[in-house]
Amino acid sequence: MKIQIIMGSASDMPIAEKVKAVFEEFGVAYDLSVASAHRTPDLLKKLVEKSDADVFIGIAGLSAALPGTIAAHTIKPVIGVPVSGKVNLDAILSIVQMPPGIPVGAVGLDRGENAALLAVEILAVKDVRLEKKLLEYRKKMREKAVSK
Amino acid sequence: MKIQIIMGSASDMPIAEKVKAVFEEFGVAYDLSVASAHRTPDLLKKLVEKSDADVFIGIAGLSAALPGTIAAHTIKPVIGVPVSGKVNLDAILSIVQMPPGIPVGAVGLDRGENAALLAVEILAVKDVRLEKKLLEYRKKMREKAVSK
Amino acid sequence: MKIQIIMGSASDMPIAEKVKAVFEEFGVAYDLSVASAHRTPDLLKKLVEKSDADVFIGIAGLSAALPGTIAAHTIKPVIGVPVSGKVNLDAILSIVQMPPGIPVGAVGLDRGENAALLAVEILAVKDVRLEKKLLEYRKKMREKAVSK
Amino acid sequence: MKIQIIMGSASDMPIAEKVKAVFEEFGVAYDLSVASAHRTPDLLKKLVEKSDADVFIGIAGLSAALPGTIAAHTIKPVIGVPVSGKVNLDAILSIVQMPPGIPVGAVGLDRGENAALLAVEILAVKDVRLEKKLLEYRKKMREKAVSK
Amino acid sequence: MKIQIIMGSASDMPIAEKVKAVFEEFGVAYDLSVASAHRTPDLLKKLVEKSDADVFIGIAGLSAALPGTIAAHTIKPVIGVPVSGKVNLDAILSIVQMPPGIPVGAVGLDRGENAALLAVEILAVKDVRLEKKLLEYRKKMREKAVSK
Amino acid sequence: MKIQIIMGSASDMPIAEKVKAVFEEFGVAYDLSVASAHRTPDLLKKLVEKSDADVFIGIAGLSAALPGTIAAHTIKPVIGVPVSGKVNLDAILSIVQMPPGIPVGAVGLDRGENAALLAVEILAVKDVRLEKKLLEYRKKMREKAVSK
Amino acid sequence: MKIQIIMGSASDMPIAEKVKAVFEEFGVAYDLSVASAHRTPDLLKKLVEKSDADVFIGIAGLSAALPGTIAAHTIKPVIGVPVSGKVNLDAILSIVQMPPGIPVGAVGLDRGENAALLAVEILAVKDVRLEKKLLEYRKKMREKAVSK
Amino acid sequence: MKIQIIMGSASDMPIAEKVKAVFEEFGVAYDLSVASAHRTPDLLKKLVEKSDADVFIGIAGLSAALPGTIAAHTIKPVIGVPVSGKVNLDAILSIVQMPPGIPVGAVGLDRGENAALLAVEILAVKDVRLEKKLLEYRKKMREKAVSK
Repeated sequence: MKIQIIMGSASDMPIAEKVKAVFEEFGVAYDLSVASAHRTPDLLKKLVEKSDADVFIGIAGLSAALPGTIAAHTIKPVIGVPVSGKVNLDAILSIVQMPPGIPVGAVGLDRGENAALLAVEILAVKDVRLEKKLLEYRKKMREKAVSK
Repeated sequence: MKIQIIMGSASDMPIAEKVKAVFEEFGVAYDLSVASAHRTPDLLKKLVEKSDADVFIGIAGLSAALPGTIAAHTIKPVIGVPVSGKVNLDAILSIVQMPPGIPVGAVGLDRGENAALLAVEILAVKDVRLEKKLLEYRKKMREKAVSK
Repeated sequence: MKIQIIMGSASDMPIAEKVKAVFEEFGVAYDLSVASAHRTPDLLKKLVEKSDADVFIGIAGLSAALPGTIAAHTIKPVIGVPVSGKVNLDAILSIVQMPPGIPVGAVGLDRGENAALLAVEILAVKDVRLEKKLLEYRKKMREKAVSK
Repeated sequence: MKIQIIMGSASDMPIAEKVKAVFEEFGVAYDLSVASAHRTPDLLKKLVEKSDADVFIGIAGLSAALPGTIAAHTIKPVIGVPVSGKVNLDAILSIVQMPPGIPVGAVGLDRGENAALLAVEILAVKDVRLEKKLLEYRKKMREKAVSK
Repeated sequence: MKIQIIMGSASDMPIAEKVKAVFEEFGVAYDLSVASAHRTPDLLKKLVEKSDADVFIGIAGLSAALPGTIAAHTIKPVIGVPVSGKVNLDAILSIVQMPPGIPVGAVGLDRGENAALLAVEILAVKDVRLEKKLLEYRKKMREKAVSK
Repeated sequence: MKIQIIMGSASDMPIAEKVKAVFEEFGVAYDLSVASAHRTPDLLKKLVEKSDADVFIGIAGLSAALPGTIAAHTIKPVIGVPVSGKVNLDAILSIVQMPPGIPVGAVGLDRGENAALLAVEILAVKDVRLEKKLLEYRKKMREKAVSK
Repeated sequence: MKIQIIMGSASDMPIAEKVKAVFEEFGVAYDLSVASAHRTPDLLKKLVEKSDADVFIGIAGLSAALPGTIAAHTIKPVIGVPVSGKVNLDAILSIVQMPPGIPVGAVGLDRGENAALLAVEILAVKDVRLEKKLLEYRKKMREKAVSK
Repeated sequence: MKIQIIMGSASDMPIAEKVKAVFEEFGVAYDLSVASAHRTPDLLKKLVEKSDADVFIGIAGLSAALPGTIAAHTIKPVIGVPVSGKVNLDAILSIVQMPPGIPVGAVGLDRGENAALLAVEILAVKDVRLEKKLLEYRKKMREKAVSK
């Protein structure tokens, strides 16, 4: 089981770091690449088509076509992370407002950790070990929240 | 394998119908309930906690707290569908902008069919039969698009 | 008579401080807790249900489900304070656009002091001493405004 | 105990009707007037100042200054109802974004019923009979929601 | 001939300074006061009603009711200046979206200099000396723009 | 004394009718023309430069450059009326957000009557007869509002 | 010389009709196809890469990735037309906010005629006959505007 | 072959620098001027009408009438660059939402490099040498993106 993380630009790395941190905590394998729906569409297509990942995470700002383009090339679940900038509604709406037939699940602005957690939840649907880790993770989150 | 669809209000049925149509096409089992994060929070909690669903779909408009509240009660993947109204940005942002730790994957406004397809993709991660159906579904979509 | 202040996250403390300052000025008793509609929904429910507060104030940013979820568990008046972030319309609309049946009274972005004053006004409906203090407070505010 | 409902314009009557229906269900006394912060500011001031109401509800669209102006003339709780039009964010933001010191509790767009319920909740803080009615009202709402 | 400048808050002074600078350049008399539609409505009303100003300029942020409230108390031309903050659309829409019958002329966000110039243009309708100054002012502006 | 009304398009006539109705009620002379900042810029420039109007009213939708372009060609007061369409924020912001040096006073969306009233107020600054009419007009507006 | 028009969906035909009408008036050759960045990305890529068009026009609504994806596959000028729907800012921002390196020229919402005219202007850069037609077209537009 | 770059204000220079850098890389001739649709409309008109440029680029913020006004005076292709400020939607919508008949191709906020590349693409329609340079430029962009 593996997740493919794709950033639209190397400048999206701070958001990708949040994704990686969660995967490392959960012991989930991942690949991280930079590929742009606009600058390197063929690279992106190849990356998606040859990938054996079970879930894809696309991270992009502005007219964030990346998650939707990943979804265009795979029937694996695709999670989109809008990256903040000067407008913000641009990346959010570009990722959320996909046309019928090609789904993307959007998480919040710069919310790499939630993209990772959603990906883990997807893998955990058929993986009891991961399911347990998720329950523990959430339990710890609650204890930490309560202790404050 | 089963999906739990939850509408925040009975008036969200037209969007739920889009979800159901996809599940029936794919032969995916589902339950459909009305439960509101605001009007019937305990019912919603019970419904989520006792459910053996693998994926949840929450459909809601306005300050659409439903998908996020479902996610608060489960570590299964949760997909949120914002329902259109007089403002639209309210439901979209309420569903997308989840805080760190509790992920929801948002699809587009009124996009019940994409919520269903994303749910099928999630189930298909470990179900070769569903994966094939998704590939066929997409192939047909493309043929239909080309033939126009 | 008592007010229950609930922050969705410990990071909302600067806004809670504005609330506290007003209550201390008016000699109004309050409790301050952190409880999240998303991360600790059961804690939040218990906190609200066992509280003997007369008014609740929920402080939250992003898809700010907190005030609405408090309102789902009580028939006491609930005041919501949206907390500023990268989008701002998210928290404002999430708190304001409640569905019919479960009211929340929203104050402005980061406007903890107004949430507190509204809570005092509510208590003062049947408390002549507080009513007098409010009249004095407003008088002083006007004198201060005029003297500038 | 009494509520003063004020509409900015006679055209806001459909929203005021929602307020009235709730008050009649709860047996709460109310007065309904038309007074505009812009067209009849002196009438509005007199109406507010001479009123013996315990709570005020201001209903207005566009640059909805009405609730804020009511709040400027009273230290009683003021609830604002933005009325929908061609822009919607105008009335919502005009009512929500009050400056420090003069609180208004905003409910959702066209949400007269919630304004009324919030007003009943405020009166119920010290009125056991109304509190019971609110609990029954909510119980019925839940039963109705569940039965669907 | 005189202009009355009113700020909703002493914190709006940087915008008022832009207004003053223009009036001083044109030799136009003005008064500058702080009066809030929300905090000091009676002071504001008195200030407007007793003023012998020919034009009013209201400077305010947030739910900027000030210019509209000035207009409610006078039939002199009123110019509104929205002041920037965390939302910006709040002050712009609150000032622009006045209901029928009570006009306000809104200038851009923080655009005190344009409010002043519009006021001078209004006075210049019947003042040949000011009209000439305006023509010179614009000529200089053009020369300065061209020389860059 | 005269007002020049300019519509960006013949389709803006319903808004211009509101302007005309007010001028006819007040007995104010006006000219009404169609001239577009985009389609007929030279016609617009000539129209503005040769006009002996004391005030200009520009009515336009979309990227409503008309009022700003009128203001570019005159030092007479210019009032802009944004016309509603599919976006609305486009016309409002295009008219309000003028750069420093070239003022436009914007009224609300489709608010032709307020543009006319503001123009009358400007003429009335030095016209006692018009000032009286404005006072009567407002008095009647109030009586009509009260009688409802 | 030829223009390739691509619609993201057959439902965009009313906007494509506006494009065609202009090309027919100017005698400009064009091809019209349906190809979606999301549903048929390979078809779209092939269509763009094998095309000998001099200019591309992409017409799409929602998270309108089409024009940007066309631009990703060609170094010919690409014009994007956002199509109206329930949100409108989604298609506008998705098309306008392209990242550095891959330009798209966006025209207004549903503005097929302007996309066509811009395409004709591009062809006319080196085509005196088309340049003359454009001058005549604009002259006629002005005469028509003046005659109204 | 030449491009005319026009900034609405000298403060737009950082965006113009991005345009120039691309033109210098491609060896494309250009003129750079400051001319405002609002402050120096006649200068702007003359500049556009006497120019022998093949493409125009207009750079402006706020109610950015510059690109549309350039387009009003020429039938050459016009590219508009919205400049960021406190609102951002103002400049984007002012440039994108042009009325029928006068096209402008808008690029993204502050996206001077894309305006330049689009201009080069337009010139390259009939210039094989530039076309080759564009292909090389894009190839290098891809190699650089891949190497990261």
